[in-house]
Amino acid sequence: MNTTELQKVLDGRFAEVRADVRERLAKEDMTADPGLSVEEYRALTLANLRKLAASGHPHRGFSGDVGGVVTAFAMLAFADLSLLVKAGVQWGLFGGAIQVLGTSRHHDKYLQPIMDGELLGCFAMTETGHGSDVQHLRTTATYDPSTQEFVVHTPDPSARKDYIGNAARDGHLAVVFAQLITGGESHGVHALLVPIRNRRGKPTPGVTIGDCGHKAGLNGVDNGRLTFDHVRVPRVALLNHFGDVAPDGRYTSPIANETRRFFTMLGTLVRGRISVAGGADTATQKALTLAIRYGNIRRQFADPATGEESAVLDYLVHQRKLLPALATTYALHFAQDEMVHTMHEVQNPGASQDEARQRDLETMAAGVKAVGTWHATRTIQMCREACGGAGYLSENLLPQLKADTDVFTTFEGDNTVLLQLVAKTILSDYGKQVGKLDLAGKARFGVELVAGFALERTGARALITRGGLRDRAYQRYLFVEREEHQIANAAQRMRAALKPGADQFAIFNAAQDHLLEASRAHVDRIVFDAFARAVDGCADAQTKALLDKVLDLHALSVIEAERGFFTGHAYLTAGRAKAVTQEVNALCGELRPHARDLVDGFAIPEVWLECPLLAGEHDAAAPATNPAPPVEGPSDLSAVG
Amino acid sequence: MNTTELQKVLDGRFAEVRADVRERLAKEDMTADPGLSVEEYRALTLANLRKLAASGHPHRGFSGDVGGVVTAFAMLAFADLSLLVKAGVQWGLFGGAIQVLGTSRHHDKYLQPIMDGELLGCFAMTETGHGSDVQHLRTTATYDPSTQEFVVHTPDPSARKDYIGNAARDGHLAVVFAQLITGGESHGVHALLVPIRNRRGKPTPGVTIGDCGHKAGLNGVDNGRLTFDHVRVPRVALLNHFGDVAPDGRYTSPIANETRRFFTMLGTLVRGRISVAGGADTATQKALTLAIRYGNIRRQFADPATGEESAVLDYLVHQRKLLPALATTYALHFAQDEMVHTMHEVQNPGASQDEARQRDLETMAAGVKAVGTWHATRTIQMCREACGGAGYLSENLLPQLKADTDVFTTFEGDNTVLLQLVAKTILSDYGKQVGKLDLAGKARFGVELVAGFALERTGARALITRGGLRDRAYQRYLFVEREEHQIANAAQRMRAALKPGADQFAIFNAAQDHLLEASRAHVDRIVFDAFARAVDGCADAQTKALLDKVLDLHALSVIEAERGFFTGHAYLTAGRAKAVTQEVNALCGELRPHARDLVDGFAIPEVWLECPLLAGEHDAAAPATNPAPPVEGPSDLSAVG
Repeated sequence: MNTTELQKVLDGRFAEVRADVRERLAKEDMTADPGLSVEEYRALTLANLRKLAASGHPHRGFSGDVGGVVTAFAMLAFADLSLLVKAGVQWGLFGGAIQVLGTSRHHDKYLQPIMDGELLGCFAMTETGHGSDVQHLRTTATYDPSTQEFVVHTPDPSARKDYIGNAARDGHLAVVFAQLITGGESHGVHALLVPIRNRRGKPTPGVTIGDCGHKAGLNGVDNGRLTFDHVRVPRVALLNHFGDVAPDGRYTSPIANETRRFFTMLGTLVRGRISVAGGADTATQKALTLAIRYGNIRRQFADPATGEESAVLDYLVHQRKLLPALATTYALHFAQDEMVHTMHEVQNPGASQDEARQRDLETMAAGVKAVGTWHATRTIQMCREACGGAGYLSENLLPQLKADTDVFTTFEGDNTVLLQLVAKTILSDYGKQVGKLDLAGKARFGVELVAGFALERTGARALITRGGLRDRAYQRYLFVEREEHQIANAAQRMRAALKPGADQFAIFNAAQDHLLEASRAHVDRIVFDAFARAVDGCADAQTKALLDKVLDLHALSVIEAERGFFTGHAYLTAGRAKAVTQEVNALCGELRPHARDLVDGFAIPEVWLECPLLAGEHDAAAPATNPAPPVEGPSDLSAVG
Repeated sequence: MNTTELQKVLDGRFAEVRADVRERLAKEDMTADPGLSVEEYRALTLANLRKLAASGHPHRGFSGDVGGVVTAFAMLAFADLSLLVKAGVQWGLFGGAIQVLGTSRHHDKYLQPIMDGELLGCFAMTETGHGSDVQHLRTTATYDPSTQEFVVHTPDPSARKDYIGNAARDGHLAVVFAQLITGGESHGVHALLVPIRNRRGKPTPGVTIGDCGHKAGLNGVDNGRLTFDHVRVPRVALLNHFGDVAPDGRYTSPIANETRRFFTMLGTLVRGRISVAGGADTATQKALTLAIRYGNIRRQFADPATGEESAVLDYLVHQRKLLPALATTYALHFAQDEMVHTMHEVQNPGASQDEARQRDLETMAAGVKAVGTWHATRTIQMCREACGGAGYLSENLLPQLKADTDVFTTFEGDNTVLLQLVAKTILSDYGKQVGKLDLAGKARFGVELVAGFALERTGARALITRGGLRDRAYQRYLFVEREEHQIANAAQRMRAALKPGADQFAIFNAAQDHLLEASRAHVDRIVFDAFARAVDGCADAQTKALLDKVLDLHALSVIEAERGFFTGHAYLTAGRAKAVTQEVNALCGELRPHARDLVDGFAIPEVWLECPLLAGEHDAAAPATNPAPPVEGPSDLSAVG
């Protein structure tokens, strides 16, 4: 099969950037020897960062091609994830914060040296005591009108900045998020520029720098801790796009409400979240490429009929470990491509402010990040197990992929908290929809809920089978029904909290798992839709037919995983649920011959896949036959009565 | 609550050994600095191994206390898993193979220096091309009667011994598994002693030693590769308990059938599999201890009613991440304790040969190892995520637990292959049961199957609710029904393979997922039974009441996870399935206040838990209150219509 067409579909909207990255970066040797010490790995990662700066890629992002630069950086996962994170910190977080939260006085002074990799810096938001709830971080920045300075201070050890990339070794300037206090009044979290190292690389006065030390992975990134002891910075160090302090100390802001201001500021940083999702996707693609290609050449246990040892990817259970995950990886890839494109449109400097679209983007980014990074860490784990002992050796690349991506479920937003934020938004939308209905409408809405319940009880829902399990409209019907049901269910449980005297925490807590179910169902549906759009837009017939099956496998494996919901709410009979599993198994068998093509479509440069694991591809000759006659193995059935 | 009683129950049959290990080994500093190089870590692990030898523990195992030594070594997981594996290789595999496969000439010469840690050696079974299917490994040992020697040879690179602990750096002697050929005839796999290093530590002639290099974890273990180029060893180097070669080359064996002989030999090595399961259990107990204690002190997001930040373990979803896993860890702990006791009885030198009991032990060991190591790696992953960024720092011990236990799902038997072996045994037993029935019995059996199907269709099964979800008999009923149903289902699918001309591989492959379902259901039921026996045997009323709830949580969380099966086969109505989830949530809430006690019951010496993660326990004062009024957070419900 011609995989050029498949690659074209996967390369999507930013195909040019991808081709450029494949060509330029593949020439550089950016992979890290697994035996490097922490200091060696940090030094190597900095050197690689400087090579990246020299390539001109970061400059694209600051000149408006946000979609292109996010796409390019995600591909760094093929080479080295420490470099991806280091680059993300330097240009995405540090440079990005200055760009969107600062004004021209900051842009003129800092953006160029940041892009050039001359000025290295940190994004100092997270504190030891406040990771998810950053709105209540405790570093303070108090304005002193007599000197026109801010005094930045860490009030106690739990308020120290923690896990800060570029802090332990390389950074000279930090974007520090602190509670802004002026005239005795707090105006919430704002960002200020605080030097942390002088030209000689020593900590600046009042700044104490700690080292997070060795980590499970990403040891090329110098995560550290920052403590400020009444550190003074000029008034103009405040990144003043969303709020400013005049020389006399008077505070002004285009957004009056403090909470709304904070979340607006955070929202502009959505690019980091989208970048992390992209990095997780590409890391998963690399892991699946290794595991599937190995599954083609690794042979174990003889087929009793032929005496030939079978390739492990011929085993149904091995297919089930890798192929549904590959299908979901395709789905997330297309969702990511759409999301990056939307971000590009919404966030381009020339774009008009579209708050609704921005908010939708933030919600989608939160949900896709959570689902995508969980998928990544579970799938890469599965790939390691599928490659047995060979998958445990660092020379075969899977250990680093697993260890490096592990924290992606935590940084840029803890996944559980992100899904709660998604729930809050979709419930709010749902509430508005319900709120908008007039009295008759509300009654009707109630009737619909009751009717739905009746449908459920009589099992009539299960009669809605449409064109069968491979019918796109039927699959979508199941995804949408699950989404709507879970949202309505979650909303119903939360409604109790609106009663006077209600124990809001207890009600929230009792409904918490339902909130997450609603979010997951929502994200599953939007990812499904994105994959369906990609398939529909495919011009080449042969490629479209293949992607159709991959989408079938993705959809049915999600439905299979959620069969408890679908049978429990009478969307599927017990018999139909079994048929779903049979269909998943059948699709695994149908796609198995195309597995190599499907991973070739990711077009990962071979230099980044070189490892002993795949050495056997060179001599993929006839499989070894056992000289002994057919023997007992797992396929010996004579013992079964 | 008095946790002394709880600890007593958990310490079980080998309480004395556990107390001894806690006292002696806690005094030694055996933990490894995360920044060690591979060479440094290997050297440290060897030094720790020698300390262990000096403690006298290994000698217990060779003098008959097999249960005690397996229990003691599993506890090494609290300190360092590289040491656990190194010790397991040296004494369990290398020494163990010589003890059970060799005879007095080998025992007299080698066992003492092995126990003393003077003679270091390897267990060289796995080959690059044969991991799971070791029956078809390809190293040869060909007898030369003219010199009364065996010629040990590696015919091609895929036959090299691979992943061999103690090979790359420290081992001097290897137990090499090879196809024994004498008089031109092969007699299957046997074990021979082959020197691999001389006194000066150099490879012996004809032996090439390779290094597997850096791994995802367990870098204190020197895994290496062995290639033999026509290496000659004396005839008496054959470990000749199960088969012997006379000076003239004549082969004799107490077991005529070659395959049966091979699996009997393998079966005696079941101790390794049981040890690995035990190590996985203790590693999981350590991870849960860290995560639960942290969950008590880590606070984030304010309760709107009080303004106080909530401990993360107060959140339902956080409880659901940790408490059901803790309950299952309890279940596996009790199953392990029973299994070790059985092994102790069956394998003690004085014990009479009981083949049936040995075979049952092997089957249980395979199943519990598979289920237990998967539980370990998934749970330790969840613990890392539950501890957020702090869980990613090596100083907080979770990264090492995750990386080190990751390969436990692969070595000592790939989990998927193990579950297939379990399926084969239980289907065989099932077949014998069916076979034993007379004609009337078979008819009745058929009627039972049909009646069962009818019960399923009418939903009458779901009426069997007995005493409710917390009724032990009802829980067992569900576990047993699932086990029996899945076994019958798998057997039915395999029966087609008995027809003449059947494509056995295709039928096996189509049924492979059903085979694994049958095995999992079987293991789930026997683990449940072991936990129930432990609860029943508990003397202290307060402890028993607590363990009762933990067993409820374990049972119902398994039922919840398998609700697709239970609703799909009409054991649970949709409504009852929802009630299961509500009950799991309720149990999480009821056990949350006891979470600390439950992990204290493992009695892990504090010195092995010391890390910055738990530093906050010292100042677990009043929770921080936010000075600001109640603010938006995930519990802000005003946005819900």
